[in-house]
Amino acid sequence: MGKKIIIVGGVAGGATTAAKLRRLDENAEIIMFERGEFISFANCGLPYYIGEVIKERSKLLVQTVEGMKQRYNMDIRNFTEVTSIDREQKIITARNVQTGQEYSETYDFLILSTGAKPIVPPIEGLQSSNVFTLRNIPDMDKIKGFVEEKSPQTAVVIGGGFIGLEMAENLKEAGLSVTIAEKSPQVMGPLDPEMAGIVQNHLVEKGINLVLNNGIEKVYQNGQLVVLESGEMLESDLIILAIGVAPENNLAKAAGLELGDRGGMKVNEYLQTSDPSIYALGDAIEVKDYVNGTPAMVPLAWPANRQAHIVAHSINGRDIKYPGTMGTSIVKIFDLTAALTGNNEKTLRRLSVPFEAVHIHPLSHAGYYPGASQIAIKLLFDKETGKIFGAQAVGEDGADKRIDVIATAIKGGLTVHDLQELELAYAPPFSSAKDPVNMAGYVASNIVDGMIETVQWDEIDDIKKKGGYLLDVRTVKEFENGHIEGAINIDLDQLRERLAEIPQDKTIHINCQVGLRGYLASRILQQNGFKVKNLTGGYKTYSILNK
Amino acid sequence: MGKKIIIVGGVAGGATTAAKLRRLDENAEIIMFERGEFISFANCGLPYYIGEVIKERSKLLVQTVEGMKQRYNMDIRNFTEVTSIDREQKIITARNVQTGQEYSETYDFLILSTGAKPIVPPIEGLQSSNVFTLRNIPDMDKIKGFVEEKSPQTAVVIGGGFIGLEMAENLKEAGLSVTIAEKSPQVMGPLDPEMAGIVQNHLVEKGINLVLNNGIEKVYQNGQLVVLESGEMLESDLIILAIGVAPENNLAKAAGLELGDRGGMKVNEYLQTSDPSIYALGDAIEVKDYVNGTPAMVPLAWPANRQAHIVAHSINGRDIKYPGTMGTSIVKIFDLTAALTGNNEKTLRRLSVPFEAVHIHPLSHAGYYPGASQIAIKLLFDKETGKIFGAQAVGEDGADKRIDVIATAIKGGLTVHDLQELELAYAPPFSSAKDPVNMAGYVASNIVDGMIETVQWDEIDDIKKKGGYLLDVRTVKEFENGHIEGAINIDLDQLRERLAEIPQDKTIHINCQVGLRGYLASRILQQNGFKVKNLTGGYKTYSILNK
Repeated sequence: MGKKIIIVGGVAGGATTAAKLRRLDENAEIIMFERGEFISFANCGLPYYIGEVIKERSKLLVQTVEGMKQRYNMDIRNFTEVTSIDREQKIITARNVQTGQEYSETYDFLILSTGAKPIVPPIEGLQSSNVFTLRNIPDMDKIKGFVEEKSPQTAVVIGGGFIGLEMAENLKEAGLSVTIAEKSPQVMGPLDPEMAGIVQNHLVEKGINLVLNNGIEKVYQNGQLVVLESGEMLESDLIILAIGVAPENNLAKAAGLELGDRGGMKVNEYLQTSDPSIYALGDAIEVKDYVNGTPAMVPLAWPANRQAHIVAHSINGRDIKYPGTMGTSIVKIFDLTAALTGNNEKTLRRLSVPFEAVHIHPLSHAGYYPGASQIAIKLLFDKETGKIFGAQAVGEDGADKRIDVIATAIKGGLTVHDLQELELAYAPPFSSAKDPVNMAGYVASNIVDGMIETVQWDEIDDIKKKGGYLLDVRTVKEFENGHIEGAINIDLDQLRERLAEIPQDKTIHINCQVGLRGYLASRILQQNGFKVKNLTGGYKTYSILNK
Repeated sequence: MGKKIIIVGGVAGGATTAAKLRRLDENAEIIMFERGEFISFANCGLPYYIGEVIKERSKLLVQTVEGMKQRYNMDIRNFTEVTSIDREQKIITARNVQTGQEYSETYDFLILSTGAKPIVPPIEGLQSSNVFTLRNIPDMDKIKGFVEEKSPQTAVVIGGGFIGLEMAENLKEAGLSVTIAEKSPQVMGPLDPEMAGIVQNHLVEKGINLVLNNGIEKVYQNGQLVVLESGEMLESDLIILAIGVAPENNLAKAAGLELGDRGGMKVNEYLQTSDPSIYALGDAIEVKDYVNGTPAMVPLAWPANRQAHIVAHSINGRDIKYPGTMGTSIVKIFDLTAALTGNNEKTLRRLSVPFEAVHIHPLSHAGYYPGASQIAIKLLFDKETGKIFGAQAVGEDGADKRIDVIATAIKGGLTVHDLQELELAYAPPFSSAKDPVNMAGYVASNIVDGMIETVQWDEIDDIKKKGGYLLDVRTVKEFENGHIEGAINIDLDQLRERLAEIPQDKTIHINCQVGLRGYLASRILQQNGFKVKNLTGGYKTYSILNK
C-alpha cells in the first residue's frame, strides 16, 4: 500500500483533490470524509433549482458516492464528521453522524477542505422557521419545499452579494414579491459603487424592492415581519439570509493550526498549513491577493479547483506554487451580467495605492448588427507603468468575455498599452474591429502617455460647487435630454468655430455621452492652449448614481 | 499650416488613420482620396444586409463624407482615384472618376490604404451578368438588387472561405437553394481539416449543398450553369465568386515600391514602405506572422485598425512597433461559431515546426445550467517549452471568448502551463469552475510534463491497418452507438478488474468519448506497466471526418 491520505470535506475542493490524487497515484490509500450526505454537488447551481431554471435536482449531483468510489478506487465516508486531529500521532477521530459511532484513522497526509458556513448574526428572530441560508443541497431542498408548501408571497433577502442577488432573481422569477435589504450603500461589494449602481438600477427596473444602507434590526412575528435599522418594516413570508460566509475552522483551531485575522487557515504557497503534513484549500483558507499581495478570503469555485491540483501534486512530490487569487468573479442578474477581476477602486484606496480609472461604454458587438448592447467597463491601472490593477464590466452581453481577457492580460503581466495590441476575434456578431478591451487600452494609454487628463464622475459635484467650468460637447438634442447641471453646451462639430466662447483661464471639464467625443474635444482645446479634463465615461457614467 | 498628409483609400484603414492624425495634430493638412463613393463603410456587414439580418442600409455607412469633414476638419475627395506617385517630387496625380478631371497634389507624407480586390480567375463565363463579387457597398447593392428583381432560386457560391460561408448562410436564409463549391478538401482554410469538418457537417445539416475538392471549370448558358472540375453541373441563377482577395498594388508597383511575393507592399515595423515618406497599411501590405515570423497576407479588420494607430503616431514622431499579425479571426455559420488564433497544424507542418496538438470538447458553461453546448477546441503548442502556437474553437456558444483568451495568452507569452492558472470568471450561466481554456491547459500540460502520450484522430486508420491495439473505455451502450472499427471495449469503471485482458506487449491506443476518461484509463494502465497512448479528442474528434 502506498501513502495514506485523508481528506476532510467531499465537496468542490475535497472531491477534486481526491480525483487528482488517484490520477497521480494508483497505489495511494485515499479516504474522503464528508459530514453531509452529498459529495461534489454543484453549489453554484442551487439558486437556479429553487427558481426552476434548473429543473432536475439530479443534475446538481455531479458525482455520487458510489460512482466516485468505483471510478477512483477510493474510500468515501459520507455522513461522517472528522471531530479532531492528533497532529503528533497523525491520527484523526471521526464520528458517523447517523449512528454516533466514533473511530480513528491514521494518515500520512491530511487535507482540510472544510469550506465555509453562512454567517448568522446574533439578531433576534433569525431562528424563525421561515429563515433560511443556502449553502448545500439540504438547504436548497428546505427552501424549495417551503416555497412549494407554503406558497410565500413576499420574500426578504438579507444581503446583496452574489448569493443574495441570485436568490432575489430566482424568487422573483418564481412569482414572489422580493426585497433585498443591504446594510452597505451598494450591492455586490466587489464592484465599485458606480458599477454596482448599474446593477441596482436594473434590479429596480425588474421590480425588486431594493433597500440600501439599511441592515436588519429584528425579525418579529415568527419571521413574518422584518424590521430594518431605519425602522422600516417589511412583510416576509420567506427570509433568505445571505450576508456572507465564514471559514469552517473549528477543526483547525482545535488542532492548533495557524489562522489568519479573518479565521482562514494560513497556508504556504504549496498550500501546506503550519503543519507540513496537513494541506488546506478552498473557502477555509486565507490566500494572497494576486494583485496587491495582502491576505484575502475569497470563497469561490475557481481557486478551490486550482488549489486541488496543487495539493495533489505537492503530495506526489511535484511542487507547483499557488500565486494568489485575483478574485475573478461574475454574476447574472436578470438580463445583466456583472463581472470583475483584480482590485477595485475601494481596495486600492484602502491600500493607498495610486491609481487611475477609466470608464467606457462600448457596444458588445458591431452596432449595425442586431442585438448589440452597451457594456460599462471600468479599468484600474497605474498611471506611471500602465500596470493593470483590475477591471469591472456590467452589460447584457459580452461582459464575461472582456473580463476573462483582462484577467488573462493581468496574468501575462500585460499593461494598458498591451491591451491596445490584443488581437481579438472580430466579426460583426461578436465584437468590433476595435474590441471593448482594445478600447479600454486606448483610453487608459492616453492617460499614461499624457495625451489627456480625466475627471471622475464623483468629482463633478465638487467641481460644480467650486464654480468650475463644465462643457458638454454633445448635440443640443442630447443635452436637452439630460445633462450635468450648470454645464455649457457646445456641439463638438461646432467647437473649432466657437473657441472664443470658452474661457482661457479656467480648467475646462468636458463631458460627452460616453467619453469619446469628449476626448476629441479635449484634443482640440488642448492644442488651442486650453487646460482641459475629460469626464471619463461621460454623462452615461455620471448619471448612473445621479438620476 | 502643418505637415501635408495624403491618404489614398478612405475605407477602414484610411479613414481610421485620418481620424487619428487629426486627434494628434490640429494643424496637419489632411487630404483623403477615395475612388468610390463611400468612405468608412462596414465591409464586414455586407453579407448580412443581403440576408436582411441588417435591415437598414444606412447603418452600414459608418461615416459620411460630410460628417467626417466637419468633425475632423479634413479634405475628403471621394470619386477620386490617385493614379500615380512621383516619389522624387512628392507629388501624386489624382483623377476625378466622374468628371475625368486630373490634377496633382504635393505631400509630406503619403499613406497607401488601397485595400484588396476580389480575385477573378480567367475562367470562361465569369463575365455573365449573374456573377458577383462582394467587396463594397455598390457590390452589395448589385447583389441585393439582383435577388429582389430576378428572384433567383439557386445560388452557387464559389469558395468556402469567410465571405463564401457568410454569403451561403445569408442566401440560404433568404430562401435560395445554395451550393458551396470549394476547390480544396475543406472550407475555412485557416482551420485544420478536422475542425473545418465540424463546420462542414453543420452546413450540410442546414441544407447547404457542399461540394469539396472541386473547383469551377466553366460557366455556361449566360451564367445559368456551373460546370465543376469533376464534370458535375450545377444550376445557378446567381453565382457568388469568393475565392479570395489580392492586394491593390498597381499604384505601389508603378511607383517602384517594394512588394512581397504575394504582391503585398513591404513595410518596416513602423509601416513605412521602401520609401520612408510613404506608409502603407491594411489588406494591401505584407505583414509578419506574429507566431512564426514569416511573411503573411492577412486581410482582416483588426490589423488595419491597429496599423492606422501606428501610422498616425509614427507620422507624429512617436514610433510604435507593429509586432506582426496573429490572424485571430471568427465567423458565424448558422448556429455555429468558428474562431481561431495563431498558427494551425497545416502552417506548422509547412514550416517544419515540431508541435503537439490536443483536442477537447468541453461544455460552454456548467452542464446543469440550461443551454450549455460543446465547444471543440484544438490547441497547438511546443512539447518542450509549452509555448502556445495557436488554437481553434468551433461551437454554438462561447468559442469567441475562449479564442480571445488564448490570443491574449499568446500575446502575454504564456505557456500551456499558464493556461491552467488563468483565473476566469465562473458562474453556471457563463463557464465551469474549470473553464474550457483551463481544461485545454491541463490536457496540454500533461503532455509537456510527460504524464501521457497521445495519438491523433488521423493516425488511427494507419494504426488499425498495422494491427495496432485499440481500447475503447466508454460504456457498452456508448460503444454500441458507434465506435472505431476493431476497437476492444472495456468500460473505464471495470478497467482495474480486467487488466488481464489487455496485452502487455503492445501499445494500447485508448479512446473514450472526448478524451477525459481515456486520460484516467491511461494513468491506470501506465501505472500498471502498460505502454499507452490516448486518442486526443476521443471518438468525438475521430468521428468528425469518419462518419
